[in-house]
Amino acid sequence: MNTENLQSNFYKLRHNRFFEFFVVAVILFSALVIGAKTYDIPENVLLVIGWLDIGITLFFLIELSIRFIGEPQKKYFFKNAWNTFDSLIVTISLMPVEDSELALIGRLIRIFRVLRMVSVIPELRLLLNSLIKALPQLGYVILLMFIIFYIYAAVGSSFFASINATLWGDISISMLTLFRVMTFEDWTDVMYETMVVYSFSWLYYLSFIFLTTFAFLNMVIGIIVNVMEEEHAQEIKEQAIADGEPTIQDLSNQIQELKEMLKHRP
Amino acid sequence: MNTENLQSNFYKLRHNRFFEFFVVAVILFSALVIGAKTYDIPENVLLVIGWLDIGITLFFLIELSIRFIGEPQKKYFFKNAWNTFDSLIVTISLMPVEDSELALIGRLIRIFRVLRMVSVIPELRLLLNSLIKALPQLGYVILLMFIIFYIYAAVGSSFFASINATLWGDISISMLTLFRVMTFEDWTDVMYETMVVYSFSWLYYLSFIFLTTFAFLNMVIGIIVNVMEEEHAQEIKEQAIADGEPTIQDLSNQIQELKEMLKHRP
Amino acid sequence: MNTENLQSNFYKLRHNRFFEFFVVAVILFSALVIGAKTYDIPENVLLVIGWLDIGITLFFLIELSIRFIGEPQKKYFFKNAWNTFDSLIVTISLMPVEDSELALIGRLIRIFRVLRMVSVIPELRLLLNSLIKALPQLGYVILLMFIIFYIYAAVGSSFFASINATLWGDISISMLTLFRVMTFEDWTDVMYETMVVYSFSWLYYLSFIFLTTFAFLNMVIGIIVNVMEEEHAQEIKEQAIADGEPTIQDLSNQIQELKEMLKHRP
Amino acid sequence: MNTENLQSNFYKLRHNRFFEFFVVAVILFSALVIGAKTYDIPENVLLVIGWLDIGITLFFLIELSIRFIGEPQKKYFFKNAWNTFDSLIVTISLMPVEDSELALIGRLIRIFRVLRMVSVIPELRLLLNSLIKALPQLGYVILLMFIIFYIYAAVGSSFFASINATLWGDISISMLTLFRVMTFEDWTDVMYETMVVYSFSWLYYLSFIFLTTFAFLNMVIGIIVNVMEEEHAQEIKEQAIADGEPTIQDLSNQIQELKEMLKHRP
Repeated sequence: MNTENLQSNFYKLRHNRFFEFFVVAVILFSALVIGAKTYDIPENVLLVIGWLDIGITLFFLIELSIRFIGEPQKKYFFKNAWNTFDSLIVTISLMPVEDSELALIGRLIRIFRVLRMVSVIPELRLLLNSLIKALPQLGYVILLMFIIFYIYAAVGSSFFASINATLWGDISISMLTLFRVMTFEDWTDVMYETMVVYSFSWLYYLSFIFLTTFAFLNMVIGIIVNVMEEEHAQEIKEQAIADGEPTIQDLSNQIQELKEMLKHRP
Repeated sequence: MNTENLQSNFYKLRHNRFFEFFVVAVILFSALVIGAKTYDIPENVLLVIGWLDIGITLFFLIELSIRFIGEPQKKYFFKNAWNTFDSLIVTISLMPVEDSELALIGRLIRIFRVLRMVSVIPELRLLLNSLIKALPQLGYVILLMFIIFYIYAAVGSSFFASINATLWGDISISMLTLFRVMTFEDWTDVMYETMVVYSFSWLYYLSFIFLTTFAFLNMVIGIIVNVMEEEHAQEIKEQAIADGEPTIQDLSNQIQELKEMLKHRP
Repeated sequence: MNTENLQSNFYKLRHNRFFEFFVVAVILFSALVIGAKTYDIPENVLLVIGWLDIGITLFFLIELSIRFIGEPQKKYFFKNAWNTFDSLIVTISLMPVEDSELALIGRLIRIFRVLRMVSVIPELRLLLNSLIKALPQLGYVILLMFIIFYIYAAVGSSFFASINATLWGDISISMLTLFRVMTFEDWTDVMYETMVVYSFSWLYYLSFIFLTTFAFLNMVIGIIVNVMEEEHAQEIKEQAIADGEPTIQDLSNQIQELKEMLKHRP
Repeated sequence: MNTENLQSNFYKLRHNRFFEFFVVAVILFSALVIGAKTYDIPENVLLVIGWLDIGITLFFLIELSIRFIGEPQKKYFFKNAWNTFDSLIVTISLMPVEDSELALIGRLIRIFRVLRMVSVIPELRLLLNSLIKALPQLGYVILLMFIIFYIYAAVGSSFFASINATLWGDISISMLTLFRVMTFEDWTDVMYETMVVYSFSWLYYLSFIFLTTFAFLNMVIGIIVNVMEEEHAQEIKEQAIADGEPTIQDLSNQIQELKEMLKHRP
């Protein structure tokens, strides 16, 4: 009885608006603390920030406990990816890493706490979910793009490695160079250099730019069409439910009734 | 009686086409005067421009007074954001700032008078209103993008500050550097520099570029979908009103009438 | 009778497919001649090219004459903008400019003869017409963009002229610099230079980039929505005509007939 | 009988899922081998890779034979462009080119074997087919763009060849420079150089950028509209088939039946 009471109370607390605002405020504050650390700050302020850091970690621990205790069905708690993410962040930031070799990772974890903003604000969570949902549909375009990159990188490192080993030394560095070409970042410098040896190498760059631009455009259009269709389907469903307007099916039924009326009359 | 007469006369004057064209012409002329000042011009021309400047300021004062007196309900005058904007511009440009320390702000105000073009031409006002109205719908995408920037800037200034303090010194300068990377402006120079120390830092840049490009694309698609939906909704409404074509609801009503006719017949 | 015969014969000749192909071939050949001239070529080849040039000019004169004589209603000939364009090109290329000061313009005219490709191929003419038709609808967005450019250029040349006169010397050179910033071409070099004096000038660049990107996006979306709507409207019209499927209006009429049938029965 | 049996057995083998996975795995492995070769690797590993290479070539030969024998109608085998492509790749990689002058082409062929990924995975084949199908519809926009490039390149090499022969020497190198300008890659450097001689040459660059951007936008929008229309048409067709909902045509038929019922009643 007592635990149940506790659970429902914590459940209420968790969904309390002021509590939610307070959690967002603490996350924002932790983000500011992280930002402040990147400036040159006096020793005593650093000390204060250290204490604040511990306070934030404790607060996150308490908040997570409230969420866990408030959960009616404990076994579903970790099925939610966001809960798992939060637990991981809190657990790792509890470890005393400041003096160890893992200090770097400790700092990174503190920074990733800002991502908790996404796990706490429902609208952001929805947005991210829809972004992630859109990715697999583009899987084959991404695979095609990777094949294009791989083939061009193999050709590039076969022919141009002797010209500039920094840019074309092996296949992975060639792929990085090709990504640079795709973003048009000083791509002509790369091209002019190889054109001195292979005067027709502009064909290599131009065909690569055309292929990747075309594939990228297709990816973008793919996303647009997907989003539009979903919107369209939802719109139709909402309209049908919302305004109770008769559908063609309703009309058909009405005419059927008319027929029945005519049939059963003398 | 006299004031009412004055009000209605000024109201008419204000909505007179020639008066409106004249106001636009004066704004255009003030824009040209501002442009002319940036060239090297002889002393006596500068003097003439000074007098023209005063003339333009006075004309704007008179035009604003006409608008204010012509307004039927004075208390609604400042509810219109454009009227408030115009009043502010005119008031500040009346202050004698040429010799004071505020000369710089005085010059800026003179430049912002060109923005009055937007407040005077209704089509531009509409366009700007629709642009501003589209922004809040994108609020959460912008927030998500800011979180991405903040986290990457925190990581960047933690790791790369020792490599190049000009680019990664603190979190705000890191965000500026990341914006630069997002626009692909010499981003490989930034990357190659950090790859000397952290050879895997290309992962940092590529993941950042992918995330921001993807979020940016989503923002663009969000705007497109919104605009399309509005257009679509308006189109349907217009069609229904314009051509008096029967809707499915009308058909349903007609069939209902038929049923009634059949029922009430012997 | 004789002239009429001539007219109809020339009209037929003009719309003959082989004649059309031949004209396109000559234009293509003239384009190749222009291209060949930009290479270092021996004296005797240049001589041949000179004779070819005269031949092409004469052919264009004959072709235009055929078109003019073939036109049933002479007064409508110059109402077609493409005819006027062709006549201008041919007339100017007839003038002996090789030795005069106008040699430069003569060369330009020869180059613009390639544009006759557009006036001869109907599909290209249609495409260009639709491109030109799309422009005025974007008029106000372009005006808004120009106002943004003008204001920022005025601010830029007021503040930054003393820092770098080559980039910010006067309002027109400032607008060119801002266009460069808009294309992200070495924009950070421009920014870092002014940030030395005005450390907050990044606000100037970032706000400019946001404003112009947003306005540009709106322009693009505007074109997309326009094109889509036209396609949509045409599709509906075509569908209605093509497959003779009953519309809601037809249904309404049928039900009305039913009512009449019921009314007029005893 | 025996051959038929063989054919049907090989047909089954070819469409066996495990066989397909195995083929993809070998292609992936051959891609990795190609990638590995670009690194500095010890002599004995190179030897192993050489043997692997031969193994892969033989496997591809066997796989192609299985596909050919498994084909029910041999004469249609080479009508499929992918089969022809595969046969070509396999045939050329069988030739002993390692020691001859064609070693370079041999290496290229080995790289292009990665493209077999596309010919083996049906989804990628579909994607590529749809990409290729979208191209011809854009033919006239591409032609228009080429005309723009050609004219600007002719003008550019006429006027600027004396300023910088590396960039504007002849019409083909000018087109490459213009493509660079179109990608905004250090385009201001190109412009500032010519502005020293022809101070109004910014008009040349700006008009070129506007024209090509506008034409490019139109091409993109063209693809979007095409894709959307196809999706839309398919959607309508699917809907009509799938859910058996009555169409307006059905309603019309029903009302017609009602009329008949009324007519034939006394």
